[in-house]
Amino acid sequence: MNLREATPEDWEQIWPIFHAIVSAGDTYAYARDTTCEQGERLWLEQPRTTWVVDDGGQILATYYLKTNQAGPGKHVCNCGYMVSPQARGRGLATLMCEHSQQLARELGYRAMQFNFVAASNTGAVRLWHRLGFETVGRLPKAFNHPEQGYVDALVMYKWLQDEPQA
Amino acid sequence: MNLREATPEDWEQIWPIFHAIVSAGDTYAYARDTTCEQGERLWLEQPRTTWVVDDGGQILATYYLKTNQAGPGKHVCNCGYMVSPQARGRGLATLMCEHSQQLARELGYRAMQFNFVAASNTGAVRLWHRLGFETVGRLPKAFNHPEQGYVDALVMYKWLQDEPQA
Repeated sequence: MNLREATPEDWEQIWPIFHAIVSAGDTYAYARDTTCEQGERLWLEQPRTTWVVDDGGQILATYYLKTNQAGPGKHVCNCGYMVSPQARGRGLATLMCEHSQQLARELGYRAMQFNFVAASNTGAVRLWHRLGFETVGRLPKAFNHPEQGYVDALVMYKWLQDEPQA
Repeated sequence: MNLREATPEDWEQIWPIFHAIVSAGDTYAYARDTTCEQGERLWLEQPRTTWVVDDGGQILATYYLKTNQAGPGKHVCNCGYMVSPQARGRGLATLMCEHSQQLARELGYRAMQFNFVAASNTGAVRLWHRLGFETVGRLPKAFNHPEQGYVDALVMYKWLQDEPQA
């Protein structure tokens, strides 16, 4: 299993993962009817870099990293992670999140921010907490959940300390 | 004095205001060296709508309104406001903010969010509080201020109740 940078050719395998997650409408701030072409732009082209978990040619998971705010905010990055419904429960989100933090440090970022975590997505919230992210904001009723209606969205944040040197 | 929707021809007068504020680097999450062309895209083209305060053909202030997050977040809008350094202290920020809230309601938004208010910008923070915005998040050291270094950035939010009917 190999975590490597995505190529344009990977989109064909990323799209089914992206589509399954986005069309459900309960986690990401993308339109549920985002098209294949729009998705490619959002996930593969606009971010600074996109990575995939490649298991012998099969893509199981993916993440992007981008600068969260320009100018005075450009030392803070933002990431998004998606795991194929078939590959859940294998620690791939943890693997990707830890990888992305190391990559962010190498790229010179000082912090990582998640802008819009649905409070109803308790699994994600728990995982990000475990990986060192703090909830620094709560946006009242900012997330329109397909079953639960308006729920709060959380802003989560981690200052990226330099790794202790060996 | 007339608050009206901006036209492409207005950019010529908006740019000096935008440039003065953005090049100072102490309030907006734009690169300090944002060019005239980039600024036009950011302020006039990408937002859903942009407005100007026009005083007999002279533009004194401007604001934009955009959807803050797509999909499950699309009922929340975001605005940015700029007042010409020569027109400060005349209540134009209040005028624009109140106008933008009414416009947001008319466009169907349920809430308004400011994503990145430098905590050092105490005048703005006080004004937004007075106009009904709550601080719902504090991003530690997320704003790199040109003199003060890393300062916190605030997330401010207001649920837009329907106006009471007469």
